[in-house]
Amino acid sequence: MTYAAPLRDLRFVLEELVGMDAVAALPGADHVNAELVAAVLEEAGRFAADVLAPLNAPGDKAGARWDDGAVTTAPGFADAYRRFVEGGWNALSCNPEHGGQGLPKSVAAGVEEMWNAANMSFALCPLLTRGAIEALELTGSDAQKALYLPKLIEGSWTGTMNLTEPQAGSDLAAVRTRATPDGEGRYRIQGQKIYITYGEHDMAENIVHLVLARLPDAPAGVKGISLFVVPKFIPDADGRPGARNDIRCVSIEHKLGIKASPTAVLAYGDAGGALGELVGEANRGLEYMFIMMNNARFQVGLQGLAIAERAFQQARAYARDRVQGTEAGVRGGGRVPIIRHADVRRMLMEMKARIEAMRALGIVTAHALDLAQAGQDAGAQARADLLIPIVKGWFTEQAGDIASLGVQIHGGMGFIEETGAAQHLRDARILPIYEGTTGIQANDLIGRKVARDGGRAAHALAAEMRATAERLPESGELAGLRAGLLSAVSLLNACTDWMVATYGTDIGAASAGAVPYLKLFGTVAGGWQTARAAMAAAARLEGGDNADRDFHQAKIGTAQFYAAHVLAQAGAYAHQVMHGAPATFALTDDQIAA
Amino acid sequence: MTYAAPLRDLRFVLEELVGMDAVAALPGADHVNAELVAAVLEEAGRFAADVLAPLNAPGDKAGARWDDGAVTTAPGFADAYRRFVEGGWNALSCNPEHGGQGLPKSVAAGVEEMWNAANMSFALCPLLTRGAIEALELTGSDAQKALYLPKLIEGSWTGTMNLTEPQAGSDLAAVRTRATPDGEGRYRIQGQKIYITYGEHDMAENIVHLVLARLPDAPAGVKGISLFVVPKFIPDADGRPGARNDIRCVSIEHKLGIKASPTAVLAYGDAGGALGELVGEANRGLEYMFIMMNNARFQVGLQGLAIAERAFQQARAYARDRVQGTEAGVRGGGRVPIIRHADVRRMLMEMKARIEAMRALGIVTAHALDLAQAGQDAGAQARADLLIPIVKGWFTEQAGDIASLGVQIHGGMGFIEETGAAQHLRDARILPIYEGTTGIQANDLIGRKVARDGGRAAHALAAEMRATAERLPESGELAGLRAGLLSAVSLLNACTDWMVATYGTDIGAASAGAVPYLKLFGTVAGGWQTARAAMAAAARLEGGDNADRDFHQAKIGTAQFYAAHVLAQAGAYAHQVMHGAPATFALTDDQIAA
Repeated sequence: MTYAAPLRDLRFVLEELVGMDAVAALPGADHVNAELVAAVLEEAGRFAADVLAPLNAPGDKAGARWDDGAVTTAPGFADAYRRFVEGGWNALSCNPEHGGQGLPKSVAAGVEEMWNAANMSFALCPLLTRGAIEALELTGSDAQKALYLPKLIEGSWTGTMNLTEPQAGSDLAAVRTRATPDGEGRYRIQGQKIYITYGEHDMAENIVHLVLARLPDAPAGVKGISLFVVPKFIPDADGRPGARNDIRCVSIEHKLGIKASPTAVLAYGDAGGALGELVGEANRGLEYMFIMMNNARFQVGLQGLAIAERAFQQARAYARDRVQGTEAGVRGGGRVPIIRHADVRRMLMEMKARIEAMRALGIVTAHALDLAQAGQDAGAQARADLLIPIVKGWFTEQAGDIASLGVQIHGGMGFIEETGAAQHLRDARILPIYEGTTGIQANDLIGRKVARDGGRAAHALAAEMRATAERLPESGELAGLRAGLLSAVSLLNACTDWMVATYGTDIGAASAGAVPYLKLFGTVAGGWQTARAAMAAAARLEGGDNADRDFHQAKIGTAQFYAAHVLAQAGAYAHQVMHGAPATFALTDDQIAA
Repeated sequence: MTYAAPLRDLRFVLEELVGMDAVAALPGADHVNAELVAAVLEEAGRFAADVLAPLNAPGDKAGARWDDGAVTTAPGFADAYRRFVEGGWNALSCNPEHGGQGLPKSVAAGVEEMWNAANMSFALCPLLTRGAIEALELTGSDAQKALYLPKLIEGSWTGTMNLTEPQAGSDLAAVRTRATPDGEGRYRIQGQKIYITYGEHDMAENIVHLVLARLPDAPAGVKGISLFVVPKFIPDADGRPGARNDIRCVSIEHKLGIKASPTAVLAYGDAGGALGELVGEANRGLEYMFIMMNNARFQVGLQGLAIAERAFQQARAYARDRVQGTEAGVRGGGRVPIIRHADVRRMLMEMKARIEAMRALGIVTAHALDLAQAGQDAGAQARADLLIPIVKGWFTEQAGDIASLGVQIHGGMGFIEETGAAQHLRDARILPIYEGTTGIQANDLIGRKVARDGGRAAHALAAEMRATAERLPESGELAGLRAGLLSAVSLLNACTDWMVATYGTDIGAASAGAVPYLKLFGTVAGGWQTARAAMAAAARLEGGDNADRDFHQAKIGTAQFYAAHVLAQAGAYAHQVMHGAPATFALTDDQIAA
């Protein structure tokens, strides 16, 4: 159950599919080059492998523990977090203005994959802190920024997002938590929030809660929700954590996975009201949360990639180690490791091909986020906005499938908890749910990202995919990729047109096809990236690069596997999108239960 | 988390897709009619819902406990088992010659679905006992039959199958357990067996282990394995459990799911050798196990159907209960239960369509098993043999997907263990592994069931599917099913031909396509059954049957959903089968890990 960071592939994606020049051209990134990136990745990989990964299985077993409002994290977590902060890892991609290191997101994405692959329960803590940092950077007052950002960026304080309430899950219009002005410019918060990741723990000296609540005069629905910053300990004039705020951790959840990450139920204001400050303008809380959620959703997509990579590493190690049976068609041969059996190989290749497609698409998306932030590329924001629900939805759906293949490769051993393969499956199961279910992502995709601009951004991206396909040679090793990608892009375009046309006339039908459309988009975009990777690898091989010969040849074979096994599913998704809606609504509610 | 047996659908499948006349025409079944079947199903449904289902979640939580070689099952299990035996349920489908009730398998399958849906951990115990009964019926001596069968059929003794050893999982050629003649006609068994379901427990007065072991002079490999019956307590001359045999339960496994079902590690012969008798002829143990395994594999397929049904019942209840958001496209409407949201509906329909396809195919397969046993229909055995790996492999792969959809419909609640949705996912995860992984099933399918007879049985079944498709009307409500089924059957035939041709020349390539072929076969066969169901329902509606109008209309809509969403995947599977092998082998072992 060791973990080795996929350094070679991360470098390949950054160098060949994004380009170090493009990264270095970002504002404030002129010092970034291949050597620096390699050094950062290597160092992070060492921390992930040596410090975080060994705590993953024990953390699952011990879990986080609640006792009378206090939460004790699993043995080793607090110490690992201290080392994480001391190493400066928390500040890696943060704004240098407040003490961050300003590493581009495309590079940081590789590092964040590592934290999550090594120990997803642990990595959730800094992931949530980054969300809080982003919200305060975007919308906080100067005083709030000065008070909170240095601590959050350093990591000595951690952050949370408080959205959900028992009656308000995906439907935030139903939020009931109230904020009452205290007459001195601050607010008293009262209400119950659930599913608060790292809402209470013992790893940092303070916890900064960002809380959605309603002002007394707020309109009903989503337009009456404001954002508040509510610290666990109220900082004094010097920014030192002072009095305990009126926030109580009522319990933590007993979950299927990520058991070392405490999921808190928080009661605000049982003793009169938790003291908080308004962040940004009143009644714009949901809008702020959505800005911040964009990045959080991207991060959750990376978690999907990460857990898939971890499951793959464990499964391939087992497949090379476990000896069982003889090789099919080989008479008189001895017993072989199960990696020699065709179906085990097929499963490993399925994992590998999907993972490499995700990694490439994830980092390309991170680069679009970098470009959008830099404001130099007009299409970048639309590109990033389009890709984020795909990264979140498609990566996380695949993560579960890949973790399940990891269990399958282990056979009976996979079902035994001590093996560790099952933990990845359990951990992965939250990913298509939190930060918006796959259904929510898909509705965001078809509505705000596709229908709203009449399919412009989607068609622009598809045009790039088609251009890639057309650059694929018509003969030779890569020729087989060409026809598959061209036809998949055509299906995607047809579905985009269908979606744009249908969204305005029959939103129910459009929504019924939303998840298949999201999966289609991800599948085709993954085919695009694996084809780009194969072309780049072929160019290296032609250029006589022998040092990485095996790696580059594998890229080509992996792209071919992706085309034959994954991209081949595009037709079914397209059929579901364009022909699946009537039957989705054919039955009454009662008939569904008949 | 209540359970209600799907009585209406079970009756529909038996009456419309098998036919009560066909059931009653079986030898010894002339008393079986629709009323009797309805009464049996209803009574079993009551027992499942009232006695077994309430123990499912508590059983998961408590688990089975090991202490110094003894296993205590979860609270309530022993009492429920006593009532199960007293109710005569264990003997339902057993041979009347030894006290069974001789109910046809097609009817018993419905009852077995219920036991497993209500409580899979519990149902595993009688499932394994049935396996032992079948082995002894087929191969035991008259004395063994007289001694063991009445007790096993009654259920006062339970049975186990002991195949696996640490080094011998899927590869039974590697079995090392030894059997040494004791000079008095019996044998001393020594060795370690793992993954023994209900290998030790407190629910019955004796446990009858069927054990694979090697005689001293046995040839190496699978042709040197013999079958032994080794009771926990050695029966005296009157058949009363006497001296404790030399079998020790070393531990039970800590598993992802089915936690109330003890999975034992058994040490045979630590104190000199466990006393056992040879069953059947020496060195034919594997052959006997395979006969018996056919039925066990069918039963595990039913478990997949069962757990899917349970997950569906829970998800649809939640979807009707949980209010969240407003209906898309409805302005000014209030909040609605989430079943009104298109994507939740799509997921529920996906569950329902796959479940009903499985139930129909499962019971049709059970009827083929009945016909094969009766020996009246020459093709029935080949039909049953062909379908069993499909039922085992396809049902169990779907079970995981369906249980996962059940979690997804619950959103964040699905990830909380108390909700119960996650248990179904955990329980279901063993199904594509035990009694032979999906890879093993698929190799059995392409080798023994398809290639060996040159595709004859497969083509015969496909011809029936095509005949069904051709009976579908070319206009009207059912016309849409026709083209999809015809084209899917053509793909299946093309893949069968490819498989037969390739198996002999390139077994590696054939094996690489084996699982996609199995899934293709299941998918098309499911489309066949749902189309048959739709036709039967349409005939009832045309005939003016208004009592079940909703049920019959739902059958048609469900078949349409299956065609648009599930059968649509046939093309991708066929592509994987016929074009996916080269890329599966494109990388070296080292490159897969590169």
